[in-house]
Amino acid sequence: MRSLLDSQEDETRNLLFTPGPLNCHEEVHAAMQTDVGSRDDFFLKTIQKIRRQLLQICDLDANDGYTAIPVQGSGTFGLESALTTLIGPQQKLLILENGAYGKRIREIGMRASREVETYSVPPTERHDPEVLRDLLQTDPSISHVAIVHCETTTGIVNPLPEMAAIAKEAGKSLLVDAMSSFGAIPIDFKTWDIDCLVSSPNKCLESVPGFSFAIVKESSLSRAQGNCPSLSLDLYDQWTGLESTGQFRFTPPTHCLLAFDKALDLFFSEGGIVGRGNRYRNNHETLISGMKALGFEPVLEASLQSPIITSFPFPEDPAFNFEDFYRNLARQGLTIYPGKLENLNSFRIGTIGQLFPDDIKRLLDEIATLLPR
Amino acid sequence: MRSLLDSQEDETRNLLFTPGPLNCHEEVHAAMQTDVGSRDDFFLKTIQKIRRQLLQICDLDANDGYTAIPVQGSGTFGLESALTTLIGPQQKLLILENGAYGKRIREIGMRASREVETYSVPPTERHDPEVLRDLLQTDPSISHVAIVHCETTTGIVNPLPEMAAIAKEAGKSLLVDAMSSFGAIPIDFKTWDIDCLVSSPNKCLESVPGFSFAIVKESSLSRAQGNCPSLSLDLYDQWTGLESTGQFRFTPPTHCLLAFDKALDLFFSEGGIVGRGNRYRNNHETLISGMKALGFEPVLEASLQSPIITSFPFPEDPAFNFEDFYRNLARQGLTIYPGKLENLNSFRIGTIGQLFPDDIKRLLDEIATLLPR
Repeated sequence: MRSLLDSQEDETRNLLFTPGPLNCHEEVHAAMQTDVGSRDDFFLKTIQKIRRQLLQICDLDANDGYTAIPVQGSGTFGLESALTTLIGPQQKLLILENGAYGKRIREIGMRASREVETYSVPPTERHDPEVLRDLLQTDPSISHVAIVHCETTTGIVNPLPEMAAIAKEAGKSLLVDAMSSFGAIPIDFKTWDIDCLVSSPNKCLESVPGFSFAIVKESSLSRAQGNCPSLSLDLYDQWTGLESTGQFRFTPPTHCLLAFDKALDLFFSEGGIVGRGNRYRNNHETLISGMKALGFEPVLEASLQSPIITSFPFPEDPAFNFEDFYRNLARQGLTIYPGKLENLNSFRIGTIGQLFPDDIKRLLDEIATLLPR
Repeated sequence: MRSLLDSQEDETRNLLFTPGPLNCHEEVHAAMQTDVGSRDDFFLKTIQKIRRQLLQICDLDANDGYTAIPVQGSGTFGLESALTTLIGPQQKLLILENGAYGKRIREIGMRASREVETYSVPPTERHDPEVLRDLLQTDPSISHVAIVHCETTTGIVNPLPEMAAIAKEAGKSLLVDAMSSFGAIPIDFKTWDIDCLVSSPNKCLESVPGFSFAIVKESSLSRAQGNCPSLSLDLYDQWTGLESTGQFRFTPPTHCLLAFDKALDLFFSEGGIVGRGNRYRNNHETLISGMKALGFEPVLEASLQSPIITSFPFPEDPAFNFEDFYRNLARQGLTIYPGKLENLNSFRIGTIGQLFPDDIKRLLDEIATLLPR
């Protein structure tokens, strides 16, 4: 039997097989029923607790020199906040790009007039550690290296430990976009010497969208005053504001923060990264074996694939029409995601959020009925 | 008897007498129980409906050349988005400042390296139309004029019609921060020739915080490509993205948008600006007469005062301690707001959100018990 934590009651609920927004637990929804003032003691304590628990997920505590800072807006807002605050106008960023989210980091940097260089490989491949080492040796003006941990474009997991070791050896600051991996794949801040990681509540932490967060070395932040050209997105100011008053500088999304507080409780109850990661791996394995039985092969080799989201090429049958496929599934309350690969027609299926192997089976059964015979 | 629209059932609920986040209707809370994908047809239709209804509140339709654009983040994010997109690097902004929110506009402009000039008057006074006329005649390099409609610092309503007429006569673009007035005080876009207005769902429209919105002349926006130094906050890109795909460029706060959709339905059911404005005026009059009976005089002259939020000086009695006063009220579930005036110790009481004259009376009764005898 499933406990409340393992499942939701309603068999007819819509299921989101996407990279987020996702299905949230009913207790997360319930937490949004309360209106609180942004200066309420109760609310300020909630912010404090969230910031502390985000460090706890990273095996960090107050003495490790890291701080967790929530920022209003989507994950891209958080990334822009971190990048434009931590990278000064005279510094240079090297981006390890193999998908849309690496390209987005490049766009953020270019917009903010930061010097950026990109080391690109195709979306189905990983970067070569030796090439990274060479690039860092050849160009000493590079101050920061940015990597996308799980590139949602394909679902690939990039080799963060190896790349982190090379960046550390070269004395470069490492910035990690862990949007879709944080909470399901372990990240070792101290060993990998991560300067800043950005993620979002509405991925593996299974809360609602409305803000993102950065987990940053205080020593790096304290040198970043005045870097950010944006008032709203200045991560240094957001940090000093939170530290001095306990408050956001500008109106926080109070209901989203209350939801996140509850989502974090549920995350720890499920066994943290280990428990949640296991459930997602079960979901993913159920998906892969079921899809293979239906004739689909994932875009990525198994060794590159995350349990977060999986890309599948369109079937070769010319009778397959993705728009019809998508809408027919949606009519049954099953939302999948279009592909994001330039040279291959594909779709994506996410396996995160309040989804369980039985939900994956429901999707597989429905897909089976929709395929051309 | 009160209908559901007039009141909430629970007599013990916490009441927020603040400028927001506010008390929302239980149907607004209920709307946040649904998880939707950001590309769902249902959700895209909701975004469309919200954008259309925002124009409807302004007596505008698709043929009037205006568009409504939601932007993730708080009201300040929306203001920064509008200002840094609409004002080009070679242009100049004149700010009519009489409080913290006028100062914030200045800070946004300075950060983005825009040329800004400020016409400041004390927070308890209005700007002189003749001075504005002179400033615009003297400095032809000024391209834009920014005004805060209701300055929440004091609760003053600034004379938007007079200032708008002068800006129009001088051929300047008018930018309006209507954060705390929109939905309760009528705004005549066409007569006042407003270029752009920014407001927020969690003020007089009584929804939850999580995004803001701009209502902008399409002709101005279409000239603003490439102005904004921020990827996340680029209002031009947000507009063209919404127009071409119906989607936000980056993950929208889905639950907050569903809440806002319901809040707009309730707004129109209450009679729109007229109905809501009337309720707020009733709240405000109940507050003023009750506070006067307790010996408090508002900071502002009655002719300058909005029905949104009201500032009161601390009582002269040296036994009065604001922190105790605030916490004792909070213990009863009544949240008021600290003052924001530099030269006067004051506090503020908001009269917007799902508040009714009986709620104001509950607050007044409690204040009466807390005053030094």
